[in-house]
Amino acid sequence: MLFFTQCFGAVLDLIHLRFQHYKAKRVFSAAGQLVCVVNPTHNLKYAPTRCAAAQTSTEQGLLPPCHHHEAVHDPQLVPCTCPLFSCPWEGHLEVVVSHLRQTHRINILQGAEIVFLATDMHLPAPTDWIIMHSCLGHQFLLVLRKQEKYEGHPQFFATMMLIGTPTQADNFTYRLELNRNQRRLKWEATPRSVLECVDSVISDGDCLVLNTSLAQLFSDNGSLAIGIAITTSKVHNAEAEM
Amino acid sequence: MLFFTQCFGAVLDLIHLRFQHYKAKRVFSAAGQLVCVVNPTHNLKYAPTRCAAAQTSTEQGLLPPCHHHEAVHDPQLVPCTCPLFSCPWEGHLEVVVSHLRQTHRINILQGAEIVFLATDMHLPAPTDWIIMHSCLGHQFLLVLRKQEKYEGHPQFFATMMLIGTPTQADNFTYRLELNRNQRRLKWEATPRSVLECVDSVISDGDCLVLNTSLAQLFSDNGSLAIGIAITTSKVHNAEAEM
Repeated sequence: MLFFTQCFGAVLDLIHLRFQHYKAKRVFSAAGQLVCVVNPTHNLKYAPTRCAAAQTSTEQGLLPPCHHHEAVHDPQLVPCTCPLFSCPWEGHLEVVVSHLRQTHRINILQGAEIVFLATDMHLPAPTDWIIMHSCLGHQFLLVLRKQEKYEGHPQFFATMMLIGTPTQADNFTYRLELNRNQRRLKWEATPRSVLECVDSVISDGDCLVLNTSLAQLFSDNGSLAIGIAITTSKVHNAEAEM
Repeated sequence: MLFFTQCFGAVLDLIHLRFQHYKAKRVFSAAGQLVCVVNPTHNLKYAPTRCAAAQTSTEQGLLPPCHHHEAVHDPQLVPCTCPLFSCPWEGHLEVVVSHLRQTHRINILQGAEIVFLATDMHLPAPTDWIIMHSCLGHQFLLVLRKQEKYEGHPQFFATMMLIGTPTQADNFTYRLELNRNQRRLKWEATPRSVLECVDSVISDGDCLVLNTSLAQLFSDNGSLAIGIAITTSKVHNAEAEM
């Protein structure tokens, strides 16, 4: 009898875990747009014990740009590009997406325009909201990070990286848009390559940056909706053809 | 002979002063757009000796929202809305523009779309760049402020205020746009009324906010170009008609 009770308990736990996973990255369509609900993940790379040298002496909590492996024997191999963990994996660029999906459970969405709905914006820094976005034949990594660049003053940083080379990244433009309460904030830029490392993009401030007060103005019930669109940058294509 | 030398010196000083004034707010047209070069003005309201209670205990260098006069006898009179100085003037809303022009030498520009070119972005906080903008039959005050909301970390805050009532302000939308190096940042919002006070808009963070690193990315040779456009907000008009 005890055995059956334990089995039943284990099945209940599995159902609960499955539900949690489903809840974390559920996708639905609202007003013709694909809305992806993204739950936060605590960023272990920024745990206080790992706090290392900051970019400048005045900035707190920033790690040096990238944690590349000490010895990469094959120059075609790239380290894991997951911004959350220091992972010993390395592999070819073509298999980074499957590594991120399988090992780090980062979801992937299809569609030219999607809405990234980050929940629980109130959670303390360091926290990340991450998805992959498949569009125009390529995969992109969208990272929203809450981080204390200045101690005691958390800010939100949002950027999009191409899971590809810097040369490939130059062919695209990404747009992040916040729209609420008769206010609109748009950021447009060329995505950086994941080979350049998300940490350095954020420490350089070359991304959409929101103070807590501005994030609250755009939030609804603790969630922040970011409209995402990716296009091919015609200027670059025209230049390349010349 | 000494008298003539002194006269000649005085005339030279006058010419120099006139040139300085011209340099401070010169306007030229580039590629069909009216470009207004705006030199910085040191904000005396934020001098360290006047540093008063901050909005929250963690925020530095913020004055309480507005310095209204202790006793305004006529409720139709408004205090001076110049964000730079604590000025004892008060008058009717209709004459605020002429007071700002004549007493505080704030320039006024005509045109639906203009480019505000703020020079010397490197100057230390507190510094303001200010013009008035005449458009759609109304006058607006554009303020770009460099301020240390968090001690040691200057930020740039840009907002547009209607020189009119809050009800009149609800009929408009303003857009501030930065565009450089394949990056674009747009902020759209309903302007606030000058009666609400620019200091409180900035302390609330309800405006375009730029970190120093982002301001540098958009700057060219120490100057920041902000494209400005004002439109009537049809949503509000439609609602008013209902």
